[in-house]
Amino acid sequence: MINAAGRDIPEYIEGYGKTVPYQGAFAMSGRPTAIVQASRPKSAVRGESKLCASIDEVLDKLDLHDGMTFSFHHHLRNGDYVTNMVMLAIAKRGIKDIHLAATGLFACHDPLVPLIEDGTITRISLSTIGRGGIAKAISAGKLKTPCVFYSHGGRACAVENGRLHVDVAFIAAPTADPQGNMNGCTGKSACGCLSYNHADAEHADRVVAITDNLVPYPCCPAEITENFVDYVVAVDSIGDPAGIVSGATQITTNPDRLAVADLCAELLDKAGYIKEGMNFQTGAGGISLAVAAKIRDRFLAKGIRGGFGSGGITSYFVDMLHEGLLRALWDVQCFDQPSIDSVANDPAHMVMSGSHYGSPENKGCVANSLDAMILGAFEVDTDYNINVITGSNGIIMSAAGGNPDTAAGAGISIVASMLMKKGPTCFIKKAVTTVTTPGETVDAVVTDYGIAINPLRTDLLEALKDSGLPLVTIEELQKKGEELGDVYTAPSLGDKIVGVVEYRDGTVIDVVRQVL
Amino acid sequence: MINAAGRDIPEYIEGYGKTVPYQGAFAMSGRPTAIVQASRPKSAVRGESKLCASIDEVLDKLDLHDGMTFSFHHHLRNGDYVTNMVMLAIAKRGIKDIHLAATGLFACHDPLVPLIEDGTITRISLSTIGRGGIAKAISAGKLKTPCVFYSHGGRACAVENGRLHVDVAFIAAPTADPQGNMNGCTGKSACGCLSYNHADAEHADRVVAITDNLVPYPCCPAEITENFVDYVVAVDSIGDPAGIVSGATQITTNPDRLAVADLCAELLDKAGYIKEGMNFQTGAGGISLAVAAKIRDRFLAKGIRGGFGSGGITSYFVDMLHEGLLRALWDVQCFDQPSIDSVANDPAHMVMSGSHYGSPENKGCVANSLDAMILGAFEVDTDYNINVITGSNGIIMSAAGGNPDTAAGAGISIVASMLMKKGPTCFIKKAVTTVTTPGETVDAVVTDYGIAINPLRTDLLEALKDSGLPLVTIEELQKKGEELGDVYTAPSLGDKIVGVVEYRDGTVIDVVRQVL
Repeated sequence: MINAAGRDIPEYIEGYGKTVPYQGAFAMSGRPTAIVQASRPKSAVRGESKLCASIDEVLDKLDLHDGMTFSFHHHLRNGDYVTNMVMLAIAKRGIKDIHLAATGLFACHDPLVPLIEDGTITRISLSTIGRGGIAKAISAGKLKTPCVFYSHGGRACAVENGRLHVDVAFIAAPTADPQGNMNGCTGKSACGCLSYNHADAEHADRVVAITDNLVPYPCCPAEITENFVDYVVAVDSIGDPAGIVSGATQITTNPDRLAVADLCAELLDKAGYIKEGMNFQTGAGGISLAVAAKIRDRFLAKGIRGGFGSGGITSYFVDMLHEGLLRALWDVQCFDQPSIDSVANDPAHMVMSGSHYGSPENKGCVANSLDAMILGAFEVDTDYNINVITGSNGIIMSAAGGNPDTAAGAGISIVASMLMKKGPTCFIKKAVTTVTTPGETVDAVVTDYGIAINPLRTDLLEALKDSGLPLVTIEELQKKGEELGDVYTAPSLGDKIVGVVEYRDGTVIDVVRQVL
Repeated sequence: MINAAGRDIPEYIEGYGKTVPYQGAFAMSGRPTAIVQASRPKSAVRGESKLCASIDEVLDKLDLHDGMTFSFHHHLRNGDYVTNMVMLAIAKRGIKDIHLAATGLFACHDPLVPLIEDGTITRISLSTIGRGGIAKAISAGKLKTPCVFYSHGGRACAVENGRLHVDVAFIAAPTADPQGNMNGCTGKSACGCLSYNHADAEHADRVVAITDNLVPYPCCPAEITENFVDYVVAVDSIGDPAGIVSGATQITTNPDRLAVADLCAELLDKAGYIKEGMNFQTGAGGISLAVAAKIRDRFLAKGIRGGFGSGGITSYFVDMLHEGLLRALWDVQCFDQPSIDSVANDPAHMVMSGSHYGSPENKGCVANSLDAMILGAFEVDTDYNINVITGSNGIIMSAAGGNPDTAAGAGISIVASMLMKKGPTCFIKKAVTTVTTPGETVDAVVTDYGIAINPLRTDLLEALKDSGLPLVTIEELQKKGEELGDVYTAPSLGDKIVGVVEYRDGTVIDVVRQVL
């Protein structure tokens, strides 16, 4: 079937099942939904301790069997020790055919590649992945079934509505008490909030907190609470602080890139988005953060202040909050220490769950209140589709994250990038390798060679026609790339489907094929 | 059937259904549980406003029909305008056979009595009720079906597991934004936290926020979030501040009552409960608060500090938090302005949901971590059963609240009271009028005529045998009451069952019969 993003999706995918093709970004909006909790094997027994002496003692209590789904969160990012610790201990017990339902996986999880190769892990689903062994193994077709790529909001939605049923959620908890109240913002492995794990904590059959900072009851603040937690285990260390704090949080100093950021701010301003109460999100990449800085400058120049900043939070947003240039932050992930400190102490720095952030099936998500979103992209095509999953060589390098959620929700969603990347390759293609975010939700592409506005946004084109902005068509940008020596050659892909890209509503927007 | 509290419970009760008799306080512990959300009629549609211009506009959208269940919370206490406002508007539409699923009802809800009399409201369930017209109407048998009395934890549990399915939750929101993010701690009708309503917000099919302080998005802090809210309506006033702040928050100055409080503290001390990290809760009544003050004195004398204080929070607990004598507060309800200010600003003053507070079916509740609980009681009997529902005249005067939850959870649960009350009547009876909290969960009764320890607590009796405390048997206290002129006469009750008292696990512990 050709879906609404123009991709040919098989009706049935081995190891995934029957597909529902993507039907348009808002085709499923407003439908009835269900929140499902199949069952909890056991309620609390007063006086019965939840504390276990070791991971092995926890595993003894979990009645493990082949085919189970275990979930992990990625707030410790590339410093996470917990996923390996638990999965290797499970593997040692000979459990097979495991679904590793991570919110994200990174290079630090390379020790799990042998478990993919030997059939211990046969299913993986995630909404974030970093470059590394697991991404390569999936691209090479080593995983028995296709990896399922969710958006952050889509994953939370799938956990809530039961499509992604988690048998056991293992939660890396930088601080926890013996009853399982926990937070991520204190302790030697502090990572900030634990948002992506809220749905798992609330809906998994069993929940295990793994901490390296066991404190007396009650853990305070308590972001995830004891009423959701079955077992607590203290270990020496849950992560490497050097890997927990992301490196992707420096504003670019490159003048050409700063010029793109400035053009982006100018577009926002001319289109009327920079106004009192403006709500916005930027990624943590160099140009994106520079756009945040440019918006800040314009707030100061106009004497106005914004509403909320959201997303993965960095010190730039924390500073704007504390300067009074934003009224509040909605946080799903803290990228640096100032953000961690802020979420621990400032009531205006609010934690949102993954569902609250971006689920299309609840009664309203924060993404829907964004005025402006600056999106990341490996590739954009002339239909404005975004690819943030595979490189132009077809190899998995990342995952959707909040890209589709915020693009769908924001008043204006913008990709800001230098036209030419290393290679040289042009990031605008005739067709993206993998559709992650559908073009109908992407409003503008801002480059050093001009701004392309999605023709669907006739309102924007009308508003900007006399703006003096360097408006071009996306086709012109794509051709400019060719002129500038784009060396793109289509990747050599096999027939085997190694990844299924679900749009946030659970429909299939694209598949990822094996790289030969 | 005679249940485990010795009460004769019909197998079937007209208007309630088949009963499951109470089988002991912990008989249901540890069993598998389910969290159920039947369905949500509609997920969010981006750009579609949730704001309604009036209650009537909201009602137009709700597809109302006979037999629906509407829920309301009682954090505005005797100052609440919302329940009447909504119910009278629904009644005007001719909707009949309504289940009013309130967390609590007070004298301010007397205007709803005619709706009970005319068959608009045929079912009521609640976990708190104040003296007033509705209590009298139920006692008099005017409600078509028996009122269901829950504990706070039991009600949350019933909402979560689907036994109490709410069609529409109407939430009085002292502050809300147009998407439905809301809090109770700011605004002209500030009441503190909204804990008892969390389960309804999360599990009702539809959720309506009704506010008199509509603020720009995002409402900050956001205690209940937009992902659970369908509609928002702004009205002139949701409540009367004079009725919102409870009057029951003064420490007694009566020397005899202070002596009982002191004896209570002495019991706690001699039994080893006043120690570093002690977690405790007291009601907001005069003697209970005095016990808190006596515990504070002993913390200071010993140079120790407690862990958490919990429950309905008063300034006395807030002061202990700010003095460093408690590390944290777990709050389900703020009784005074200092508590409201504190929960708005102090991260160590934590909000817990009703489920987290006391549900017996989740994976652990705060009540289970209480070292000591000071319980209220209208009557206690020689089996240590507590009645906090009916007066000795049989008329409904209150409801279980957190009494059964905390009695079951706490390391020691104590009733502290003057033996003789106005009348004169002795509060210790051979049998209580209505069993609210089973005797097996009540450990001690402290009076001005001595301390009775529940014989089930052989450990306590052993520990206290040489303590010098004035230990007596409960039978001795009951007889002492007779000597002192107890004028108790059994109420004149009819056969009609006007109330079903569910223990927190959903079993029936007692029934309330019509007062003739």
